[in-house]
Amino acid sequence: MSKARNWWWFIDRIGDYESHMHAITHTICHERTEYQEVGIVNSVVYGKILVLDGDMQSSQYDEFIYHESLVHPAMIAHPNPEKVLVLGGGEGATLREVLRHKTVKKAVMVDIDKRLVELCREFLPEYSAGAFEDPRTEVVFADVLEWMKTCDEKFDVIVGDLTDPLPQTPAYGLYSMPFFELLKRRLSEGGIFVTQSSRISFVDMYLHNVLYKTMTEAFPILRTACAHIPGFDVPWSFTSASYEIDPIKLNREEIDSRISSRLISELKYYDGETHTGLFALPLHVRKARREFLEDPKFPEGKSSPVFII
Amino acid sequence: MSKARNWWWFIDRIGDYESHMHAITHTICHERTEYQEVGIVNSVVYGKILVLDGDMQSSQYDEFIYHESLVHPAMIAHPNPEKVLVLGGGEGATLREVLRHKTVKKAVMVDIDKRLVELCREFLPEYSAGAFEDPRTEVVFADVLEWMKTCDEKFDVIVGDLTDPLPQTPAYGLYSMPFFELLKRRLSEGGIFVTQSSRISFVDMYLHNVLYKTMTEAFPILRTACAHIPGFDVPWSFTSASYEIDPIKLNREEIDSRISSRLISELKYYDGETHTGLFALPLHVRKARREFLEDPKFPEGKSSPVFII
Amino acid sequence: MSKARNWWWFIDRIGDYESHMHAITHTICHERTEYQEVGIVNSVVYGKILVLDGDMQSSQYDEFIYHESLVHPAMIAHPNPEKVLVLGGGEGATLREVLRHKTVKKAVMVDIDKRLVELCREFLPEYSAGAFEDPRTEVVFADVLEWMKTCDEKFDVIVGDLTDPLPQTPAYGLYSMPFFELLKRRLSEGGIFVTQSSRISFVDMYLHNVLYKTMTEAFPILRTACAHIPGFDVPWSFTSASYEIDPIKLNREEIDSRISSRLISELKYYDGETHTGLFALPLHVRKARREFLEDPKFPEGKSSPVFII
Amino acid sequence: MSKARNWWWFIDRIGDYESHMHAITHTICHERTEYQEVGIVNSVVYGKILVLDGDMQSSQYDEFIYHESLVHPAMIAHPNPEKVLVLGGGEGATLREVLRHKTVKKAVMVDIDKRLVELCREFLPEYSAGAFEDPRTEVVFADVLEWMKTCDEKFDVIVGDLTDPLPQTPAYGLYSMPFFELLKRRLSEGGIFVTQSSRISFVDMYLHNVLYKTMTEAFPILRTACAHIPGFDVPWSFTSASYEIDPIKLNREEIDSRISSRLISELKYYDGETHTGLFALPLHVRKARREFLEDPKFPEGKSSPVFII
Repeated sequence: MSKARNWWWFIDRIGDYESHMHAITHTICHERTEYQEVGIVNSVVYGKILVLDGDMQSSQYDEFIYHESLVHPAMIAHPNPEKVLVLGGGEGATLREVLRHKTVKKAVMVDIDKRLVELCREFLPEYSAGAFEDPRTEVVFADVLEWMKTCDEKFDVIVGDLTDPLPQTPAYGLYSMPFFELLKRRLSEGGIFVTQSSRISFVDMYLHNVLYKTMTEAFPILRTACAHIPGFDVPWSFTSASYEIDPIKLNREEIDSRISSRLISELKYYDGETHTGLFALPLHVRKARREFLEDPKFPEGKSSPVFII
Repeated sequence: MSKARNWWWFIDRIGDYESHMHAITHTICHERTEYQEVGIVNSVVYGKILVLDGDMQSSQYDEFIYHESLVHPAMIAHPNPEKVLVLGGGEGATLREVLRHKTVKKAVMVDIDKRLVELCREFLPEYSAGAFEDPRTEVVFADVLEWMKTCDEKFDVIVGDLTDPLPQTPAYGLYSMPFFELLKRRLSEGGIFVTQSSRISFVDMYLHNVLYKTMTEAFPILRTACAHIPGFDVPWSFTSASYEIDPIKLNREEIDSRISSRLISELKYYDGETHTGLFALPLHVRKARREFLEDPKFPEGKSSPVFII
Repeated sequence: MSKARNWWWFIDRIGDYESHMHAITHTICHERTEYQEVGIVNSVVYGKILVLDGDMQSSQYDEFIYHESLVHPAMIAHPNPEKVLVLGGGEGATLREVLRHKTVKKAVMVDIDKRLVELCREFLPEYSAGAFEDPRTEVVFADVLEWMKTCDEKFDVIVGDLTDPLPQTPAYGLYSMPFFELLKRRLSEGGIFVTQSSRISFVDMYLHNVLYKTMTEAFPILRTACAHIPGFDVPWSFTSASYEIDPIKLNREEIDSRISSRLISELKYYDGETHTGLFALPLHVRKARREFLEDPKFPEGKSSPVFII
Repeated sequence: MSKARNWWWFIDRIGDYESHMHAITHTICHERTEYQEVGIVNSVVYGKILVLDGDMQSSQYDEFIYHESLVHPAMIAHPNPEKVLVLGGGEGATLREVLRHKTVKKAVMVDIDKRLVELCREFLPEYSAGAFEDPRTEVVFADVLEWMKTCDEKFDVIVGDLTDPLPQTPAYGLYSMPFFELLKRRLSEGGIFVTQSSRISFVDMYLHNVLYKTMTEAFPILRTACAHIPGFDVPWSFTSASYEIDPIKLNREEIDSRISSRLISELKYYDGETHTGLFALPLHVRKARREFLEDPKFPEGKSSPVFII
C-alpha cells in the first residue's frame, strides 16, 4: 500500500462546488484573535499560507504577485507619493512594497487586529521584511472606519488591503458610500486610492461588480487591473480611483523609467510590460461588468450558482 | 447531518501536491479508445468537462477562452488565411474558431483518435457547433507525424491543439525538432504556426520552457500569449512561430478592425484589448524563461518539487 | 504527471469532521423523486451505491451484511413467521431476505416513494432478486404512519427498514411513541418487531440512544445487535422488540438448525456463530447507553462534537 | 462564502479506491527516524493520531479498543501470566494494558525504533500512562528478529504489536516461519502468543490469510478475534496461538471473574460479553479464510482490486 509522503491537506473552498487542495507539511499557528480566526500552515507548493476565517489570504511564494499588483500601479502613476496610508494589510507586505519607493516620507498602516499583526511578524517575517521597523512607518491598531472619522491628515496614496466585506468578518461594512466619503477627505489633491477589488472571472464577479459600481458613484476615474494569483486559483482584481490620475495613460517606457529612478530595490512581478497586461481586461469581463452597471441584478440561474453575499 | 446537495467530485491532480476539486452532477461517458482513456462529466461550475488519460482538457463554459486565445491571434495576424491545418483538436472547437474566418477556404484537421472525435460530436456538440459539417472542413484520422511525412499541401496557418507530450500519451514524440522540420515544409510562404505551449507559472513552466527552446531553434519569430483558464486553475500559454509575422506588431485598432471585417460572428474573449493582455507576460515569467534558455537546467529544490517529465 | 485511472469520488460525509471517499467509475442515476433525492453510482470497491438525500444507504457488495443482520435474527427467533410487514425497504433486499423463509405466506411492504422503488428495480435488480415478483409479496405505496392508522391486519414479524428520522427527510416523525402505539396493534400475539437503529459507536450513538429509550417505554424485551458495515465505515445497530421473544435465548445449534430447516437458500453472513457476535455489544457501548438511559442528556463537549438531530 | 471552521485534513488511503478523511486541528510532530516516517496530528473526532510511513497506527480516543482486544484475551486465558514479552508496541499502550495485570512480574518490550518511543513518550503520554516508568518494565531497542536469536529467557505471554509486514517498512520479514520458530523457543510451557493479524473484511483479508496460514504451520491452537476500530474504518483481527490454551473455552462468567480478581484497574472495552463478540467471526469471513487455506491463491478480479503485498 504505497502512499504519497505527504498526508495533510488544506482544502480551500471556492464556493460550494469547487475546492483547491494544498498538500501541507505542518501547521504553524492556529489561533482565534479578538476579530478573526488565524491559521498559518506550510504547504509544499506555495510555502507558508495565511488563512483568515477559513479564507486563504496569501502565500509565501506568490504573495509578490498580489502585493506588487496592488501597490505599484497607483504609486508609479502618482507623480510624487510622499505620504501613504495602508488600510488593513496585516501581513506587512503591502507596507513593504510601499516603502520600496524612495519618495515615501511617511507610511501609516491602520489594522483592527493587533494580534494578527503580531502573529504575522512572528511567523511570516519574510512578508514584512523589516517594514515594521522602518522609521517612516507608523502602525495604528483601530477600526478603519472609526479611525478615519477622527483623522485629519491627508495622503497622496491610500491602499486598501482589506479582506472581502463578507458578513461576520471584520471588513463587513467597509466599501460602502459612507466609507468612500470619509476616504475622499483623506486624499491629498491629486491623490489616488487603490484597493483589492475581489475575484474577477466568468464564474463569479458579483462582489467585484457591486464594489465597482459603488466606486463609480464616488470617483470620476476608475481603472481595474487583474492578476492571476496561483494559490487562489482565481484572477484577482485591483481598482484604483482618483480625480486626476489615470494609470493607463502611462506608457511602458515611462513606467520602466519611473521604476528605475524611484525604487530602492528590484521588483519581481511589475514593470512596464506587466502593467500593460494588468490593465487589459478580457472582453467577457468588460462585457459582464458593463451589463451589471447598466442593470445591476445578479443573473440568476446563469452559468454558475456560485456567488458571494 | 445536513449535506451539500452534490456528492460526486472530480479531483483533478495538478502535480502531487495540489488538486482542483470539481463537484459533478453526473458522468456522461467513460470509455477507453485505441489511444487514450476518455471521460466526460458534467460539473456544476464549468458544465461538461472532457478528461483525457486523467488530465482535464477543457470545459464547456470556459473553453472559449482557450480556443479563442489559441486560434485568433495567429489568424488575425496573418494577412489572408485561406488554408488552415489543425493538428489534434478532437473536440472540434479549434476548427469552429478557424471557420469563423470568412477568408478560410479549406480547413484540414488531423487527429489520431477517430473514436474520440465521435464521442465529442455525440456528447459535446456545443464544442464543434457544426464545424464538422462545414463544407470547408476535411477531417483526417491519422498519426500527425506520419501524415505530415506524406502530405504535400501547404497551409497559411497551422494550429497545434495537441495534448502535452507526456510519456504514454498520443502526443509523446511530437514537439521535437523532426516534427518542426516537417511542419515548416507545410507552411505557405508568409505562413504562421501556433500551438498550445503548456502551463506557464512560477510553480511550473518546465514543459513550456523545453518546448519554447526547441522552437527557437526552428523559427526566427516566436511570440507567447498567456491566458488564465479557470477550470484548469493555471495560466496557459500559446506560442506562435513564423518567419515574417509578428502578432505583437498589430495595434488594438487594427485588430478590432480585422475582427469586424473578417469574422462571421462575434467573439466572447478576444479583441484588441484582450490581445494586448495576452502578449504581456509578467516579469517573473519572462525572467524564468530567459534563465532557462541561457542555462537549460531544471532548478532543483527551488520553490517547488512539482514538475513534469 | 502519472494519475490514478479513476477520477470521480463520492465523498460520504460522516458528520462535519470525517468523510469516507469512494472512487467511482460512473454515475448510474440521479433523480429527485417527490420525497427525496436519489443517486446511484458505481464504486470500485463496493459496486453500486444507493444514496438518498446525500446519505449512503447501502452498497451492492456489502448490503448482505446489513439486510441479513436486520431480518434473520428476528425471523429465526419467531417460532413460525407467516405474515411479515416491511416498513420502508425500497431497494427490495429486506423483502428478499424475508422471502427466503419457507414459513412466510404473505409479505407486505409499505414504502412512501413509488419512484424510488421503480429506480431500484431498474438499476439495482440484484438487490430485490425477484422479490417484487414473488406471489407472496404485496407492495403498498403510502405514508407508513397514515397506512398503519387504517390497516387492520396483524403480522408475526414487522421489519423497520426506514432511513434515520432526520429533519426534512421522509422518515422524520416516525420512531416516536404514537408510531410505536400504532405498530403494537399490528403485531400478532407472540410477534416481534425489529428495526435498524442507527450508528452505534463511541463517536456517536445519540440517535440510537434516543430511539432505544423511546422503545423501552413501548416494549418489555429489547435486544440490540450490531454489525460493522464496511461501506458505511461505522458499526450499525438493529434492535428487536417484543413481549415474549428474546433472540439471545437461542443457542448456536438451535439457530443453525432453524436456518437449515426453514430457509430456501444459503446465507452469506448470518448463522449461529454470527448471531452470538451480533448480540455481544462491547462494554463501552453498553455503558454509554446505560448512562444515557439513566440521565438522557447529550454529553456536550465530550469526546466528539459530532452528533445528529 | 461560509466555511467550516476546520480546514486541514488527514486523508488516510485505504488502498487506491477508498480513503478516510479526518479533520485535524493541528500537526504535532513530523519527523523521519532512522527506521520510519513519524507523524502525529490532532484530529477533531479521534484526538491525536499516530501515523507511521503514511499509515494510521492508532488514535487517542479509540486506541483502547485496539489495545484491550490485543492484550486481554490472551492474558486472561493464561492461568498466571508472570513474564510478558511485547514485540514492537512503540506507543507504550500495549505495555500499559499488560501491566494492569497484577500477576505480571516482568514485562520486556523490544522495539527497533528508539526515537519513535521517545516521540510517543513526549507527545502521546496518555498512551503509555506511566508504563515506561513501571519498575516491572524493561525496554530493549533492537531488531526483534536479531534480539530473539540471542535471548534465552522464556515468557508466559508474548504480544506482537508490530506494523503490517509490508515491503520497505521495519516489520517486513517478520511473521515468517523462521520468526515463529525463534518465537516458540521463547514461550514458557503453557504459554500463549498473540499478535495483531491485519484487516479482516470482505474487501480485503489477504494479508490476514497469509499470516494465519503461516501460523497454522507453527501452532496447533489458533483463535482469531475481530474488533472494529472506528478510526481505521476497518475491522481488525488479533490471532492468538498456543499449544494448550484456547481462549474460546472460557465462559463469560469466568472471564469477568478473572478480570475482577487479576486486574488493577477497570477496563473500557473488554469483558466477558465483549469476549464472546470478539471471537464470533461472521460467516463470510470464516468461509473466505477456509477457502484460502484450502487453495491459497488470491482470487483475482473478484469483488475488489484492493489488496496488499
